[in-house]
Amino acid sequence: MAALQNDLILRALKGEELSRPPVWMMRQAGRYLPDYIKLREKYDFFTRVETPELATEITLQPVDQVGVDAAIIFSDILVIPQAMGLTVLLEEGKGPILPNVIKTQADIDALNTGDVENRLDYVMKALAMTKSELNGRVPLIGFAGAPWTLLCYMVEGKGSKSFDKAKQFCFTQPEMAHSLLQKITDITILYLKAQIKAGADLVQVFDSWSGMLSPADFNSIAMPYLLQISDAVSKDAPVILFPKGSWYALPDIANSSATGIGIDWTITPKMAREMTGNKITIQGNFDPSHLLAPIPQIKKEVKEMIDAFGVKNYIANLGHGIMPNVPVDHAKAFVEAVKEYGA
Amino acid sequence: MAALQNDLILRALKGEELSRPPVWMMRQAGRYLPDYIKLREKYDFFTRVETPELATEITLQPVDQVGVDAAIIFSDILVIPQAMGLTVLLEEGKGPILPNVIKTQADIDALNTGDVENRLDYVMKALAMTKSELNGRVPLIGFAGAPWTLLCYMVEGKGSKSFDKAKQFCFTQPEMAHSLLQKITDITILYLKAQIKAGADLVQVFDSWSGMLSPADFNSIAMPYLLQISDAVSKDAPVILFPKGSWYALPDIANSSATGIGIDWTITPKMAREMTGNKITIQGNFDPSHLLAPIPQIKKEVKEMIDAFGVKNYIANLGHGIMPNVPVDHAKAFVEAVKEYGA
Repeated sequence: MAALQNDLILRALKGEELSRPPVWMMRQAGRYLPDYIKLREKYDFFTRVETPELATEITLQPVDQVGVDAAIIFSDILVIPQAMGLTVLLEEGKGPILPNVIKTQADIDALNTGDVENRLDYVMKALAMTKSELNGRVPLIGFAGAPWTLLCYMVEGKGSKSFDKAKQFCFTQPEMAHSLLQKITDITILYLKAQIKAGADLVQVFDSWSGMLSPADFNSIAMPYLLQISDAVSKDAPVILFPKGSWYALPDIANSSATGIGIDWTITPKMAREMTGNKITIQGNFDPSHLLAPIPQIKKEVKEMIDAFGVKNYIANLGHGIMPNVPVDHAKAFVEAVKEYGA
Repeated sequence: MAALQNDLILRALKGEELSRPPVWMMRQAGRYLPDYIKLREKYDFFTRVETPELATEITLQPVDQVGVDAAIIFSDILVIPQAMGLTVLLEEGKGPILPNVIKTQADIDALNTGDVENRLDYVMKALAMTKSELNGRVPLIGFAGAPWTLLCYMVEGKGSKSFDKAKQFCFTQPEMAHSLLQKITDITILYLKAQIKAGADLVQVFDSWSGMLSPADFNSIAMPYLLQISDAVSKDAPVILFPKGSWYALPDIANSSATGIGIDWTITPKMAREMTGNKITIQGNFDPSHLLAPIPQIKKEVKEMIDAFGVKNYIANLGHGIMPNVPVDHAKAFVEAVKEYGA
């Protein structure tokens, strides 16, 4: 395998001194890129995800076209519920639908937790193919959804503003909820380890809905499973946890086995540094909607963001996924501004 | 006008020593109450809002049936965009639609900001009628939407997960955005003062979408207008600001003219007290979805919440509106648990 020519993100996760931070963007492979939109017109979502050649092509687009310092494999967090045995439907432009939601212990007992390497062999093939195509240009990121976030979809059956059904399930049937969370955790650990074996240089765990939980509920429902994952997987490769909205968890995650923490834009860099005590690499936290501002303003704000976080122990990123209506020039300006930092 | 027999909430806002905190629930008048649902089957939303007899009946239902320590007038934050000249459509069970969104300075210039007492005379009549019917049993709360939250609807034209259009409007056309925010602020001040004149004993300002803003954007787009409102209105009656999700603003609001601050459930009582330094009365912050838990658990959690906040400078409430699927018994249990505190 080719040696990495750009290992900035791995060095940032080790806390090494760098002249500028590495940069990538959540959802960088996808919807705002014209070449992606062309593929979307020809192939449906799961065809794009399940065909290694297509997933590889999509994963490489932002590396070639936007100049990010890391590739993240094109896939979806809901491949795990699929691998566990649930049907997942996805209509373009709408959210996912899981027609057979989890209601009973029998539903949970029927879920698969093993054999993920075979069940999701297309992800492993896409990682290996991407790794080979990258030829050491930048590191490759693997990922998975966090157990709480996957439970949300598996119980609610679709996206929601507040995931009340999922919360009700946890608050009224805690034993069942924990058995489901444990099953998701078990398969997720196997899945992330398999991704690393297949070529991922680091992995990120997306807890997209953790911010809907109170600190007490987060500590009961989300955190223990995030920690199980980072304890098990960080032996093999760096693990970035991204519990979106759960600013209150920063001190505990800073003291955990996680290598990095992703934060959204609803916390100042200063406060995030204070809450983590420089004990962990922070990734974030540009408000994605600020990419709609004029380019000079984007560049100014990126510089201010890096000034505020500091270059050490920092990965420049958005605070959430890039939006479909961001002009490619604006995405490039974001990346360029990071690369120009200090120059 | 009858003297108040229960003035707990006003005393809590003054920081007086009480034996137990006052309690009410956001959205207490409405959707989870069977008597409300009967009225909803007979009259459409704006008929219920605009007919003082109906609004009064709905406002009184939770006082009579659930035993809360304050009534909040049944109305909607979107009556202000209506009074300013925009059409607001509301289909039952769906979110609001504003077909003519704000796009240009001319659109903003065309908005009304005066004569709100007449334009919204039905609110004033409902307040006067409710005040008379209450006959001093509990205080009456008036309310309005915060300027940023109203801008969201006026620019986006409907509800949204992230209000990207509204944010884009603010980030790309800040002068226009500020002129719109100022106009909304001007009419809101007149509106809240009129509500107090008509019978409201205190008012609350709902900034339902402030948590979508970064701390820097909150300080530019939301906070100055919240402060203008509390500076102007707190001379007449207590003002509770509820910038949902904007935990980072607690220290600044604690040092402002606001009498109280509402908080959601994504912050611990301890942290909220630390950030506000006991300088302001806190209202909140029970996760509404916990009202779906069994009654003994609700009662236990309410006691723990009050233990954590302390009785002084505290108003027990939910961290957001009560959900339609909460059994009335559970809502009652929440209120009873507060009333039983320390007994």
